[in-house]
Amino acid sequence: MKSFADDLPGAVATVRAIAEGRLTAEGALRARLERCAAVEAEVGAWVHVDEEGSLARARALDTGPMRGPLHGVALGVKDIFAVRDMPWRSGSPIWEDRTAQFDAAPVALARRAGAVILGKTETTEFAGYQPSRTRNPVVSGATPGGSSAGSAAAVAAGMVPLALGTQTSGSIIRPASYCGVVGYKPSFDLVDTWGVSAFARSFDTVGAFARSVPDAALAIEALSGLALQPGSIEIVPRLSILRGPTWEMGTSELHTVWQDFEASVPITEAGPFNNVLREAMRSIPALHARIMAVEASEALAHEFEIGAAQISDKLRSQIEEGAAQTATQRLSDRAAMLDFRQRMLAATQPGDVWMTPAATGAAPVFESGTGDPAFSRIWSLLGFPCCTVPVLEDSAGRPIGVQVVARQGEDALVLEMADRLMREKFKNGTI
Amino acid sequence: MKSFADDLPGAVATVRAIAEGRLTAEGALRARLERCAAVEAEVGAWVHVDEEGSLARARALDTGPMRGPLHGVALGVKDIFAVRDMPWRSGSPIWEDRTAQFDAAPVALARRAGAVILGKTETTEFAGYQPSRTRNPVVSGATPGGSSAGSAAAVAAGMVPLALGTQTSGSIIRPASYCGVVGYKPSFDLVDTWGVSAFARSFDTVGAFARSVPDAALAIEALSGLALQPGSIEIVPRLSILRGPTWEMGTSELHTVWQDFEASVPITEAGPFNNVLREAMRSIPALHARIMAVEASEALAHEFEIGAAQISDKLRSQIEEGAAQTATQRLSDRAAMLDFRQRMLAATQPGDVWMTPAATGAAPVFESGTGDPAFSRIWSLLGFPCCTVPVLEDSAGRPIGVQVVARQGEDALVLEMADRLMREKFKNGTI
Repeated sequence: MKSFADDLPGAVATVRAIAEGRLTAEGALRARLERCAAVEAEVGAWVHVDEEGSLARARALDTGPMRGPLHGVALGVKDIFAVRDMPWRSGSPIWEDRTAQFDAAPVALARRAGAVILGKTETTEFAGYQPSRTRNPVVSGATPGGSSAGSAAAVAAGMVPLALGTQTSGSIIRPASYCGVVGYKPSFDLVDTWGVSAFARSFDTVGAFARSVPDAALAIEALSGLALQPGSIEIVPRLSILRGPTWEMGTSELHTVWQDFEASVPITEAGPFNNVLREAMRSIPALHARIMAVEASEALAHEFEIGAAQISDKLRSQIEEGAAQTATQRLSDRAAMLDFRQRMLAATQPGDVWMTPAATGAAPVFESGTGDPAFSRIWSLLGFPCCTVPVLEDSAGRPIGVQVVARQGEDALVLEMADRLMREKFKNGTI
Repeated sequence: MKSFADDLPGAVATVRAIAEGRLTAEGALRARLERCAAVEAEVGAWVHVDEEGSLARARALDTGPMRGPLHGVALGVKDIFAVRDMPWRSGSPIWEDRTAQFDAAPVALARRAGAVILGKTETTEFAGYQPSRTRNPVVSGATPGGSSAGSAAAVAAGMVPLALGTQTSGSIIRPASYCGVVGYKPSFDLVDTWGVSAFARSFDTVGAFARSVPDAALAIEALSGLALQPGSIEIVPRLSILRGPTWEMGTSELHTVWQDFEASVPITEAGPFNNVLREAMRSIPALHARIMAVEASEALAHEFEIGAAQISDKLRSQIEEGAAQTATQRLSDRAAMLDFRQRMLAATQPGDVWMTPAATGAAPVFESGTGDPAFSRIWSLLGFPCCTVPVLEDSAGRPIGVQVVARQGEDALVLEMADRLMREKFKNGTI
């Protein structure tokens, strides 16, 4: 495992240092641009680096008062988000020459909070399964995961302290786990997705990558107006470990690592929650995939019309499968999704928090694709908030994330527990 | 009340006539373009009429096989939807010169189904409360309502048989009622909103205006893949009249008209449903308005950044109010919204259908604004499907709609009952 020393200040530290006059936005940015110059050729995290524009913006910030909670923080933005006057390719040759006319809502909110948009990060094709060119910066020869490949890799390689991504099945949690960084997928719909290319509207969720939980929380605070910083609330945790219904899909390496981890924390007892999950497991992955296909066929109807030949086989068959779905199946799938959400709320309590593996194992080889979202599908379908922290590694030293999950709306709780878990790790050197 | 004879074939009739070789898409379109030439100067429904492009498209359709359920149907599209290569102003001077680079998802789906996009219809500023220039084509000196002003007016004046609009508080149901046409707001999220300027993501819903319920259903079938045509399912209706908790906000004219209407149908009995509604009424309008303000401040963050001075006072104060909302209030408002939705589902049964006034009365004078969305806020907040049919009129002959409502997901039921109600009216000349 390669290591990128976390020697540059993160988002929270940058804002504080600028506020205290110990750092300028330009200085913070130049350090990141240097890192980009040193490692980008190897990683391939960026579609576009706006050196000139970001430097101008940093200098402008340095001449005025503190703008907001992200003042002077260099931000990577996944290329499915519209960023005014920057390329907006969404990982597809169809949009090779598109330049965005406006900012997506989360981008505008980040700017309002003082962020410096450093550039656009690589994404799989329309944030689906067709891989991008990005390499995993910490595991040689491995995929960074997808779809938010460039955002995860840019943060892992220290090119930015913070990056925005999206998750529809496992597109934040999985790449964060593979790249050994923090990945936070908020509750569904916590962050406005206006101006972010849609894939499947029932699941598409804007989230963040960072090197610490407070940094990830800072980003989503700026984008949602909520108070999410860990440490600000007193919580008596009702935390338990959950192997989850997808356990059998994990690698044997994952099983070994996880069994060690389990020794240190209480296990979720068998109960209504586990029963609903287990029952759901028989139908949920297929249900999620069917709804994704139908919604992708709607969201990408224009691209399919103007450029079907430029769409990958993988995505085209997904779109065709969705478009061909019968009216009856569409209706019953939507009903089943709502019903599952209801039953999961009924089977759980406010304050419940679970720790579950972030992915089926460590990052697989680059050529195998972007990895398996199996350990995220259920939470994406439920809209529950998830945050993965890089606290485990396999025998080869490859990172494996622990995913902290709670009920819809309990983002502050997820972040609080994820932060405690990560601090524990770095305090003890082990769990 | 002025009358626009419904002498041109509607959407269903147009498709059938083309399929049977009795009409061409070009012929159908030319008849609508003639109507536009005759009345548009008086109505002001259009931002842009694409005569050349729509004729080319109609001719192309005439040379090939039937494309889909909207083959050859001229369609008006509210100007908050992106339509490739057409103006995309969203009712704001900020976007005076913007031309869309792509089709919004519903536009692409309509094209795939064979629709001919005739042009972009006027909208209030970003589909908010600041009026457009459009006049009510059937009530002299009156507002057509808003925000989908141009879409309602274009259909009412016979310039198109079908138009797309959106509703966030009452932007489909109210203008349809004021203009004497059918307005259908589907269940929340039934139609993909990708590429449609957002205002408040928890409520923004794409719907349709038409002269008949089957025509409105046809549009949303094409956009959702569901089967929605009335007459195709056997339903034993559990239909009742509901004055609703906003009754007192209606005009005395409305009360008179509605009391006559009530004589002919059963009234909703007092019960859990009414209790929840009545209790909700104390907090729902303010809750809906607060969430709308917060979400508008997010969705329009970019416009606020680049053009605050070009935003109307009305909208600017809404955005500022939203942006200033505390974290605690945001969190509790979202929780209250989810809780209200849960309680309303618990207090009702699948198959329940209610008829309730579509607006507080007939169309008010143009200078007074776009009218009051009070009779739609609750259904918009719940995400319940609604369809208004123009079956009542006040003593001055001004149209008043009856709004048919059912639980989320029961769109086919709403359309079935709305269609029966409208057929009944035209059979008997009275209810």
